[in-house]
Amino acid sequence: MPQPDHLICLDIPDAENLGEDMDAYLAKCEEKLGMVPNVLRAYAKHPAKLRNFVQTYNTLMLAPSGLSKLEREMVAVVVSSANRCYYCLVAHGQAVRALSGDPQLAEMLVMNHKVAELPPRERAIVDFAWTLTTAPMSVGEAERNALRTQGLTDADIFDLADVAAFFNYTNRVAHATEMMPNPEYHAMNR
Amino acid sequence: MPQPDHLICLDIPDAENLGEDMDAYLAKCEEKLGMVPNVLRAYAKHPAKLRNFVQTYNTLMLAPSGLSKLEREMVAVVVSSANRCYYCLVAHGQAVRALSGDPQLAEMLVMNHKVAELPPRERAIVDFAWTLTTAPMSVGEAERNALRTQGLTDADIFDLADVAAFFNYTNRVAHATEMMPNPEYHAMNR
Amino acid sequence: MPQPDHLICLDIPDAENLGEDMDAYLAKCEEKLGMVPNVLRAYAKHPAKLRNFVQTYNTLMLAPSGLSKLEREMVAVVVSSANRCYYCLVAHGQAVRALSGDPQLAEMLVMNHKVAELPPRERAIVDFAWTLTTAPMSVGEAERNALRTQGLTDADIFDLADVAAFFNYTNRVAHATEMMPNPEYHAMNR
Amino acid sequence: MPQPDHLICLDIPDAENLGEDMDAYLAKCEEKLGMVPNVLRAYAKHPAKLRNFVQTYNTLMLAPSGLSKLEREMVAVVVSSANRCYYCLVAHGQAVRALSGDPQLAEMLVMNHKVAELPPRERAIVDFAWTLTTAPMSVGEAERNALRTQGLTDADIFDLADVAAFFNYTNRVAHATEMMPNPEYHAMNR
Amino acid sequence: MPQPDHLICLDIPDAENLGEDMDAYLAKCEEKLGMVPNVLRAYAKHPAKLRNFVQTYNTLMLAPSGLSKLEREMVAVVVSSANRCYYCLVAHGQAVRALSGDPQLAEMLVMNHKVAELPPRERAIVDFAWTLTTAPMSVGEAERNALRTQGLTDADIFDLADVAAFFNYTNRVAHATEMMPNPEYHAMNR
Amino acid sequence: MPQPDHLICLDIPDAENLGEDMDAYLAKCEEKLGMVPNVLRAYAKHPAKLRNFVQTYNTLMLAPSGLSKLEREMVAVVVSSANRCYYCLVAHGQAVRALSGDPQLAEMLVMNHKVAELPPRERAIVDFAWTLTTAPMSVGEAERNALRTQGLTDADIFDLADVAAFFNYTNRVAHATEMMPNPEYHAMNR
Repeated sequence: MPQPDHLICLDIPDAENLGEDMDAYLAKCEEKLGMVPNVLRAYAKHPAKLRNFVQTYNTLMLAPSGLSKLEREMVAVVVSSANRCYYCLVAHGQAVRALSGDPQLAEMLVMNHKVAELPPRERAIVDFAWTLTTAPMSVGEAERNALRTQGLTDADIFDLADVAAFFNYTNRVAHATEMMPNPEYHAMNR
Repeated sequence: MPQPDHLICLDIPDAENLGEDMDAYLAKCEEKLGMVPNVLRAYAKHPAKLRNFVQTYNTLMLAPSGLSKLEREMVAVVVSSANRCYYCLVAHGQAVRALSGDPQLAEMLVMNHKVAELPPRERAIVDFAWTLTTAPMSVGEAERNALRTQGLTDADIFDLADVAAFFNYTNRVAHATEMMPNPEYHAMNR
Repeated sequence: MPQPDHLICLDIPDAENLGEDMDAYLAKCEEKLGMVPNVLRAYAKHPAKLRNFVQTYNTLMLAPSGLSKLEREMVAVVVSSANRCYYCLVAHGQAVRALSGDPQLAEMLVMNHKVAELPPRERAIVDFAWTLTTAPMSVGEAERNALRTQGLTDADIFDLADVAAFFNYTNRVAHATEMMPNPEYHAMNR
Repeated sequence: MPQPDHLICLDIPDAENLGEDMDAYLAKCEEKLGMVPNVLRAYAKHPAKLRNFVQTYNTLMLAPSGLSKLEREMVAVVVSSANRCYYCLVAHGQAVRALSGDPQLAEMLVMNHKVAELPPRERAIVDFAWTLTTAPMSVGEAERNALRTQGLTDADIFDLADVAAFFNYTNRVAHATEMMPNPEYHAMNR
Repeated sequence: MPQPDHLICLDIPDAENLGEDMDAYLAKCEEKLGMVPNVLRAYAKHPAKLRNFVQTYNTLMLAPSGLSKLEREMVAVVVSSANRCYYCLVAHGQAVRALSGDPQLAEMLVMNHKVAELPPRERAIVDFAWTLTTAPMSVGEAERNALRTQGLTDADIFDLADVAAFFNYTNRVAHATEMMPNPEYHAMNR
Repeated sequence: MPQPDHLICLDIPDAENLGEDMDAYLAKCEEKLGMVPNVLRAYAKHPAKLRNFVQTYNTLMLAPSGLSKLEREMVAVVVSSANRCYYCLVAHGQAVRALSGDPQLAEMLVMNHKVAELPPRERAIVDFAWTLTTAPMSVGEAERNALRTQGLTDADIFDLADVAAFFNYTNRVAHATEMMPNPEYHAMNR
């Protein structure tokens, strides 16, 4: 049962010119990761969308924040688990393996975050991300206070909400287009 | 029962400096709309986030696309109805009233999009947005073909998926922060 | 996109004779409201049903009760929001605007009752109505005690349950027949 | 485990005077059924509500209609099964046993209507009632046409919708008040 | 509306030889119950499956345990109510009537277990079974502690989980094959 | 974040004597797999349960059937994905990797079976397993015919239903006890 090697299930011609900044960015991906993540190749059909995606992604996932990079990747996996997004589970599952050095932790977050024995701060963070994804209308002061109790500032909560919400965006773009992840992720950091 | 005039339920200091481009952008909003939408004032706590939001929003909602601006606003309302997002229903409900000149259409999309007697193309568009929001795992070739049958190109489908997915992001940021819309929207275009 | 002006999507001849009491009642509606609400015109296909509806409606919504008329209209809107009933949201949304003088309150109850900052008594009332609508099996002594704590007597709770349950009836008649509200409601009390 | 003999879990004094018509009606119940159904004893706390209930019930369930009395009782059971309403399942389950002479049919409708091998007309009727109860927003022309195909007129569909919707009302009154059925029903027509 | 007398909706030839132990077991059923339960006749298509089912069933439902036989039958009914399994509700509903001598208790567990006024131990047991059936991911230490508070040992909890989980198996075999119960159950122990 | 090494979250003493057959069986596991799967160690608290589990498991998963062993393992994974059962996803995910030689296939079935491009027979099999797990009441002749169209006999359908239903049993035992899989599975067959 050989699996699909398409990027997305939409037939859209490649953009002729991505702009220097994006050409440089994709080259840097190739150099540092050994591949260009398929989400970037997909958004490269439309240079302005690619630029917006890269800038938003980098602000949310890589810029300084009260949330560690691992915590942000854990949120990405838990949201994608709720939405059953194959692309993001493969790509961000690998990121959790890489950042945590703990492949079992990544598997737990992919399959059922509740079985992971997390420190209270991380438990509060992933529970918030799960609730915001599956029952957004139910989030209120009680849910924010559960985070404050674990030491998150209001700016941290904004970052957490922003990251969790963002993967509800990317998960749906991946579902709608049947975007497939690069096969290289599977073997990394096992 | 006077209602809240807060922006968001998070206590975060204002950024000291938004950058010239963002200062100019907010001034233009004030000039053209008579107000700065609260979502911008909220994201202005964090200038990089504000810039990302503005650029992404403008690409998705205002740039040339096979989807009309009204169709994109209809998608925004239907997604926000599924997620019961007060901020986006108020703000984009007003946009549908303004662009369509049909206040009843906006009310139908807010309350129950199924009661609207839409042309087949618009019916297919809003049904796709609803399904991608409420059951993202179920979207596949059949759902994309229902759009192609109505004349959407694959590039149009990408735009539609991107817009519908994006409001699943903003809806959740608004829910998590209890963001309140500017009161001016309510009376406009009735 | 001109919207439908039909009453209901069922082709049933008008009744020949409504009876003097109902003729007088409809004439009074015309005189006092400037229109006959479409739900009455629809039930007028069957005079006994019209009479039952009018009597039940008037007992529940207009007769003396420990619940104010505004509270009963708020319940009507919140139940109809849960069921996404276009007819009742339009008609009773207008009633909340008229009785409260607060159009934003009506919008909040239509779109997402949780964002409204209500006094504790009204919060308890609309939460009970929402739960009885969406998860009727879960209502028990705890839910009734939450009302008693806010000063509702057991007779008030009976009235509240009766009103909330009744709109689960009318919402479904409206859904099943695709009943459309009078267009006059939209502009009133904005 | 002796079970409760209360009427309802609300402490409301009995009405002093039900009116001659209602006194006569309850006496006739006692004479014909050997009991006064508890729903009537509960509504008798409030004479106007009792009168409205009796008149509406009798129009819907006993007046001439294109739907047989058995069909209307089958709808009552299927709606109450969806809502898991103990009172109505016990009372109307007995009615289906009595009218059909088929206790297994009643059990199937109580437990899982899908296992009953019904004639196509009755299958269409109970499927419509189930859908209108559990997913009211999804009822449209296709669902009405499935009934028309089985010979129902539009007036019959109005009656069916009215009956199915009505039990969504009574089920919720019973849930909210924890109304208990008369124990006599259990042994009848087995 | 004569109902089906088939065992299951699959056309599979009978096994030629069940083995002496199974022949003896079925003969004993006939002798003691006056019938061979249809689930055994269905599994007799495949002797190894029949033997596994009989042994597992007898260990779970009849062997010594900290849970009484009635408690185990109550769990069977509540799980089957959540899954709306006609076969198991009929067969185990009869068992609850027989073991408890309380037909109303059985009806309550079939229709809506929440209306039964149970001793705290039995309430905790059936609530656990309901949750494990409908929301298995949500069961954790809090749910186990609610049982320990009522005096269940950890070995009792294992038995309870095993019984509740097992009926999620048999319910689905019955649904998938449309297995019908022996008609004799209906009249027994009313 | 070191993860738990407990078997289950229940404190039950080990059985003193498993019986010769079970001692031999566990020794054979150790020899052939290099470990005793934790589910067997957990059931070994109760020798009769262990024996029943082993015999049922071996009949369902290893005995001759019209379904291949890989197909049966695919069903195990898809059911466990619907129920989000960590134990079974880890253990049977490894089995799919081993039997198929295709680690990506296993990941797809764990994360979202819909993204796997399966031959029509396997697509029908896993879709049936998913539906029987998540909406058992909806399985009927149409769902069985979708399997017959792909060449499954009625005996094959019985086997498929039995396997899919069985993992709804084991998944819930694992959830209720928080059973943890042997860590060895994670690195195997990547």
